[in-house]
Amino acid sequence: MEFSNFDELRRAVHGLKAVPTAVIDADEQHVLEGACQAAAEGLIEPTLIGDTDIITRLLGDISCKNNFRVIHASDDDAMAEKGVELIEKGEVLALMKGHIHTDQFLHPVLVHHLQGKKRISHVFLADLKTYPKLLYITDAAINITPDLSTKMHIIQNAVDMCILLGVEQPKVAALSAVEVINPAIPSTIDAACLAKMSQRGQITGALVDGPLAFDNAISAESAKVKGIKSDVAGDVDILLVPDLVSGNILGKDLEYLAGAQLAGIVVGTKVPIILTSRSDPANARILSCAVAALLCHRME
Amino acid sequence: MEFSNFDELRRAVHGLKAVPTAVIDADEQHVLEGACQAAAEGLIEPTLIGDTDIITRLLGDISCKNNFRVIHASDDDAMAEKGVELIEKGEVLALMKGHIHTDQFLHPVLVHHLQGKKRISHVFLADLKTYPKLLYITDAAINITPDLSTKMHIIQNAVDMCILLGVEQPKVAALSAVEVINPAIPSTIDAACLAKMSQRGQITGALVDGPLAFDNAISAESAKVKGIKSDVAGDVDILLVPDLVSGNILGKDLEYLAGAQLAGIVVGTKVPIILTSRSDPANARILSCAVAALLCHRME
Repeated sequence: MEFSNFDELRRAVHGLKAVPTAVIDADEQHVLEGACQAAAEGLIEPTLIGDTDIITRLLGDISCKNNFRVIHASDDDAMAEKGVELIEKGEVLALMKGHIHTDQFLHPVLVHHLQGKKRISHVFLADLKTYPKLLYITDAAINITPDLSTKMHIIQNAVDMCILLGVEQPKVAALSAVEVINPAIPSTIDAACLAKMSQRGQITGALVDGPLAFDNAISAESAKVKGIKSDVAGDVDILLVPDLVSGNILGKDLEYLAGAQLAGIVVGTKVPIILTSRSDPANARILSCAVAALLCHRME
Repeated sequence: MEFSNFDELRRAVHGLKAVPTAVIDADEQHVLEGACQAAAEGLIEPTLIGDTDIITRLLGDISCKNNFRVIHASDDDAMAEKGVELIEKGEVLALMKGHIHTDQFLHPVLVHHLQGKKRISHVFLADLKTYPKLLYITDAAINITPDLSTKMHIIQNAVDMCILLGVEQPKVAALSAVEVINPAIPSTIDAACLAKMSQRGQITGALVDGPLAFDNAISAESAKVKGIKSDVAGDVDILLVPDLVSGNILGKDLEYLAGAQLAGIVVGTKVPIILTSRSDPANARILSCAVAALLCHRME
């Protein structure tokens, strides 16, 4: 069953066992609030990593009475290392980024081979009143200027995740500014190759088309006006953005101006990794936990 | 007076003389509908350039009774050339792109020096229910991968337009994915330079800041959480996007998912040029005509 919004997704998680999750650099109020609320909703069972004194004080401030396990670590590297160690021991089944910078957070994940065979990448899930189903946007947070080969892995990671979340054959649009191949716009060339890679079986489980402009991807009417024949146009599940900057602008804009609710997950790893921005509201953290929890259960 | 939405802008145009405007490649239904409606609202006085037979038949089909001047031209180059010729003779004061491709449309504009001293660039104006004033996005349609110097001109063009439309000292955000300088993300470096160029007087009339992520630019609250001190953050007028592709994705996404009304104008030229996409609705054409008409009157 494919989810048309986060309410449906959260109903699917309801009643499942909370996922033991290490929260890295937890000594910040928004982070703790997110973790406490996600725990209260039975999504995760947090292990809080950071400065024990600060965490204890903040838990009092936000009136979070739960008796979470707290592990002391004083610098960012140590916190991230500790999280990976807990994963390797099987004591937790997911990681959650707290106030720590993404680079420092992900470093031990990459070094310690928590990644699978593929590259790791990031997926935003967006719940929009103006689109009939969850929209997946990748990669807006990890790979800065991916080459063609990396884009192929980014798509496959998102497709695998999307299938786990119930989409039978995800429709992927490789985005650019136009729907024709223009050698002056390299993302049109990558997009054409990615569409063909999908046809040749180099990307599996999905229908990939590109290049498509955003309006052609999202609107069948717009594609029709431009005379575009595509199985993807107007019914897209996954938007592959040309690079991190354009993806970041898109994601934030959907959140701040289009009223989208966003969840952010790192994929291509052996365990789901919850990765939200330091400025994200608590709700984004909870939704991300719900997605990670469902992935955890379905990856078993 | 700065406009908080297009209704206010249209009230400011109301009663002004319609601007004689050449519509290039007018023999397509959506184009003619837009031109006819803009004429009916007293914004433009169209001269229709294209295949006379087709134009006459289509005008009948859409029950447009006006007695517009129609000039025959059979291929795209000839149509665009004819438009520029009418500008040079002073017979029209603005150009409007019809069904023709942007490249072919703009070619004679550049060759015949209709541009001013600067580079030409494109500005989207967006009217959003979720933002308190008109938002200017540049450049999402002409300069594909602008270098630093071109970005400087792109900003100055938008600033000059924004001032003509009533914003006293436009606030410009040079967008990237993050608010810190990261050598791996070239748009952060350009953005830092553009902010300093503004301080040094290389860009005039505006407050420029960057790098800013989209959320920091648009939301004072988000900037506060990230500890960003900026005169621009949370009150931005003009968003400079890093390249055409990211700008195009942003503009189309605002239109299709955030419910924005968009107008599109080419600036840095001696006359306003109305440039909308072939898949844009009639309303986008009318709004663009309203903006062009107001610019025409205020440039006098």
